[in-house]
Amino acid sequence: MEAAFKRILDDISPVDRTPEAEGRAHLDNLTKPVGSLGRLEELALQLYLIQGGEPPQADPMRIYTVAGDHGVNAEGVSPYPQEVTRQMVLNFLADGAGINVLAKTVGAGLFVVDAGCCGGPFDDHPALIQAKIAPGTANLAQGPAMTREQCLEALLLGVSLADRAHADGVRVLGTGDMGISNTTPSTALYAAYLGLDPAGLTGPGAGLAPSSLPAKTAVIRRGLDANRDAIDSGDPVEILAALGGLEIAALAGLVLGGAKNHQLVCVDGFISTAACLAAWKIHPAVRDYCLLSHASAEPGYAAVTETLGVTPYLHLGFRLGEGTGSACAMFLVRAAANVFNQMATFASAGVSGSK
Amino acid sequence: MEAAFKRILDDISPVDRTPEAEGRAHLDNLTKPVGSLGRLEELALQLYLIQGGEPPQADPMRIYTVAGDHGVNAEGVSPYPQEVTRQMVLNFLADGAGINVLAKTVGAGLFVVDAGCCGGPFDDHPALIQAKIAPGTANLAQGPAMTREQCLEALLLGVSLADRAHADGVRVLGTGDMGISNTTPSTALYAAYLGLDPAGLTGPGAGLAPSSLPAKTAVIRRGLDANRDAIDSGDPVEILAALGGLEIAALAGLVLGGAKNHQLVCVDGFISTAACLAAWKIHPAVRDYCLLSHASAEPGYAAVTETLGVTPYLHLGFRLGEGTGSACAMFLVRAAANVFNQMATFASAGVSGSK
Repeated sequence: MEAAFKRILDDISPVDRTPEAEGRAHLDNLTKPVGSLGRLEELALQLYLIQGGEPPQADPMRIYTVAGDHGVNAEGVSPYPQEVTRQMVLNFLADGAGINVLAKTVGAGLFVVDAGCCGGPFDDHPALIQAKIAPGTANLAQGPAMTREQCLEALLLGVSLADRAHADGVRVLGTGDMGISNTTPSTALYAAYLGLDPAGLTGPGAGLAPSSLPAKTAVIRRGLDANRDAIDSGDPVEILAALGGLEIAALAGLVLGGAKNHQLVCVDGFISTAACLAAWKIHPAVRDYCLLSHASAEPGYAAVTETLGVTPYLHLGFRLGEGTGSACAMFLVRAAANVFNQMATFASAGVSGSK
Repeated sequence: MEAAFKRILDDISPVDRTPEAEGRAHLDNLTKPVGSLGRLEELALQLYLIQGGEPPQADPMRIYTVAGDHGVNAEGVSPYPQEVTRQMVLNFLADGAGINVLAKTVGAGLFVVDAGCCGGPFDDHPALIQAKIAPGTANLAQGPAMTREQCLEALLLGVSLADRAHADGVRVLGTGDMGISNTTPSTALYAAYLGLDPAGLTGPGAGLAPSSLPAKTAVIRRGLDANRDAIDSGDPVEILAALGGLEIAALAGLVLGGAKNHQLVCVDGFISTAACLAAWKIHPAVRDYCLLSHASAEPGYAAVTETLGVTPYLHLGFRLGEGTGSACAMFLVRAAANVFNQMATFASAGVSGSK
């Protein structure tokens, strides 16, 4: 598994910036003041470079909402019972969740992935990918959440999701998560990878009472202490195994696979960004292939994006996960590609330039 | 004309908030933590209240891009020649501009309106509404840009655009502007309506060199001085006539007409927000029917939205106008309506609530 994973990493490289000047010149030639479509132009250029300097294509798009459970749920870090992870998977398959509505609204395909839900397998469903690595992780407050092998398996699962999309012609991927208690491993990962204090990062997640936040912070601190060896190793896979989750590791693999396949990856909020951060630590070149879809309302998120020096595209106060922010950002990606490909130039439209 | 306009204002009233508790309860019952779709929920509730407590409908949508020229262009406040207004109208009709691409991307209808371009009429075109009130305004730096009659005519034109859309079943309107030099009248309107200093509001518009900003500010100050009587009258229509533009007054009328017809109005950036502000001053109840689509990159815009206490939905650094920000916000409106109408409830999906 180590060797298979290593081969994937070898296939990832930064985008070739050779066509950048030409791409920018094209955007500047469109009938609008230079740069006046702001971040949409930035997005068009990113997609253009990812796709090797071809007219950027945003479609087809696909979101993977990956689910997993967390042993740390036993510490009382979420107001929702653990079975909600499983119930929400069924809700995704019944087309009733936020991500179903938003994926349909933007015209993105949606697959639900069981990477590690508690309980047995689900009934088969055309939108479900059954890939349970374990029925939930171990309790990270007491030791590693996953073995290294489980973590690698989840990473390779994520890569295989990107590959499957690639085989279907998908150009733009969206990440989504479902896992009761998964702000806790995500916060632990931010603390470990970025050296930030958990106190400033810990938030209410799906709705923990403010009075319970100090206890949640304490659980994360215990997790960092219990996994000190892994953190001190500096090995990003070890850290992900120790503090992450099966869905988080699979989403990190999805980001890596997207980068390998030259797909743009729209990263959802607090949990997906932790997965993306793990992927960046594993291979820094993935940065060229990702965007942060939206600024999570989770209070620690701003500190994370500031530390990373990356600005999310949308600021809508979402804190739902599932890929709901990715779905909204995908509209911007399609808009950016259309601007690049469909607008007239000053010359072709007979419009005078500025003095 | 005064009487006709008065009758329209009499038909505008704030939204009925009676169904608000029921709308909120419905949103809170959907399978997501309460409030976790943030501003999308706010938007869904606004649309629900505008439409009288019915399941909110976002479609059909229509954008009106209204064009006009400005006498103040003679003062050198824009780097683009005045004929670009006309050239861009032709570009809109040839489907080559930013707004064409973005309206199509979001699935909104688009009409272009000649409210006051220099030169004669355009050739007829199915997407063009010929309603030229005058071939450009007078120079506001020297006196009133419009007569009161011209201003009322433009306001009534805007109302008629909303009515025409209403007759076609349109539920959501978008505003868009085209008019070389029109950040100057817009800035003058912000200064006059809000009592803000023009120096803090004046920006580069479509790309004026920083070295020319003091001269632009001086032009606006001269305009405020030359129209002191209108400003001191406190009559928002007089102020709009003195400092506005034909497209700006028509867009103010579009906002008023949308409010009268219980249509949601997505207000574009710097110029459209000045039109919206005029409409608010004319009838404060229009506020319930509008949203600010995006934060214009024009530096004065933040001071305006802070003063108004309104937060735009998107922060993408756009400074193009035409309705490009409205088009992007319309995606969020559709997403909000779909969330309200299509998500499962906790009970129907068999998902456990929080403890």
